[in-house]
Amino acid sequence: MSVDGTQEFTRAPRTTPTRYRERATWEREAIHAILDEGYLCHLGFVVDGAPVVLPTLYARVGDRLYVHGSTGSRPLRGAADAGMPVCVTVTLVDGLVLTRSAFNHSVNFRSVVAHGTARQVTDPAERAIALDALVNQAVPGRAGDCRPANDKELAATAVVRLDLDEVSAKVRADGADDDPEDLDLPYWAGVIPVRTVHGTPVPDPGLAPDRPLPGYLGERS
Amino acid sequence: MSVDGTQEFTRAPRTTPTRYRERATWEREAIHAILDEGYLCHLGFVVDGAPVVLPTLYARVGDRLYVHGSTGSRPLRGAADAGMPVCVTVTLVDGLVLTRSAFNHSVNFRSVVAHGTARQVTDPAERAIALDALVNQAVPGRAGDCRPANDKELAATAVVRLDLDEVSAKVRADGADDDPEDLDLPYWAGVIPVRTVHGTPVPDPGLAPDRPLPGYLGERS
Repeated sequence: MSVDGTQEFTRAPRTTPTRYRERATWEREAIHAILDEGYLCHLGFVVDGAPVVLPTLYARVGDRLYVHGSTGSRPLRGAADAGMPVCVTVTLVDGLVLTRSAFNHSVNFRSVVAHGTARQVTDPAERAIALDALVNQAVPGRAGDCRPANDKELAATAVVRLDLDEVSAKVRADGADDDPEDLDLPYWAGVIPVRTVHGTPVPDPGLAPDRPLPGYLGERS
Repeated sequence: MSVDGTQEFTRAPRTTPTRYRERATWEREAIHAILDEGYLCHLGFVVDGAPVVLPTLYARVGDRLYVHGSTGSRPLRGAADAGMPVCVTVTLVDGLVLTRSAFNHSVNFRSVVAHGTARQVTDPAERAIALDALVNQAVPGRAGDCRPANDKELAATAVVRLDLDEVSAKVRADGADDDPEDLDLPYWAGVIPVRTVHGTPVPDPGLAPDRPLPGYLGERS
């Protein structure tokens, strides 16, 4: 996995982000599937001409991505007025690909890169949907099983939306791709699977000892 | 985990990246430890005033980070001349933190954000060190057990260096942090551990069936 990455998964490889609305249904569904599996994005924006990349949670709701933060946060303040150019990137790593040659080593991964203008969300109903979605994206089912934000907390929270518009997705899901003349070299080749796993939930010490684990936590892998 | 993130791990929290050389030894070591555990970064740069964030492999060698790509890659070409302003971000997720209130939900994580000017590396010796390090960062020990790049492959590969200079690191490693008045609410709270695991290596079908797995692969977790 280098800066160039691999081909896009589209049948006709594209080198630039493509208008989301021009994509085929299967492409939009593939983009959604990648976005729905993750919950951490890397949000890029520009400050004084220089790039800044921060990790943050996100949620997808339909054809929109949401992130949130403190109303005092510099990048989110930037999204309050005319909007802020951003790039949201979501990457899922599936495997390390070892080839006989150093050059052909690669990574199996799925990624989505979305470009556009982020804007602060002020509508209370949309903000509530986004905040629930942010909790549920990381822990499905959780938003309905905790205390919702009160007015003071809502006032301290900025919600920012990015409409899916210019989007590219890349997928590599393949084995070792060695040059033919390297196949007899005496080196191991193959794929090391990589995945993210969730361990046994650790209860807060303040919980009653007999409090059961919520059902939505028991089903996680 | 919101756009603001948490406090830096430094004793005196800082809101802006700090000169790497001004940091205490323990801080530099903490930054190195985060960087050494990962191998995937998100590289941010600016194209026509807009941010671009791409996932790519990286390696740390001393106080330098390296990424690589095709010599035809647009961002790497940008690093060839005067250098290119970049932001390299590495994020390791350790847990999902569930609190009684939606507002206090959080993520346990460790991240490093490095700002600076990326420059192409032309010195053959440094390029060789960087390319070996890129392989070894993802699979320690592998660079010595595959065919090194030949002249044609080297000619097609751009190596870019970012000296660690303006660097910030953030760590959250804590339990559920609820407001006192929420502690008796009837919701589960605690931490769901998250980690990245490597599965059993899958040999390439072209390997001889009796070829043993290299020792450096057997030791992976």
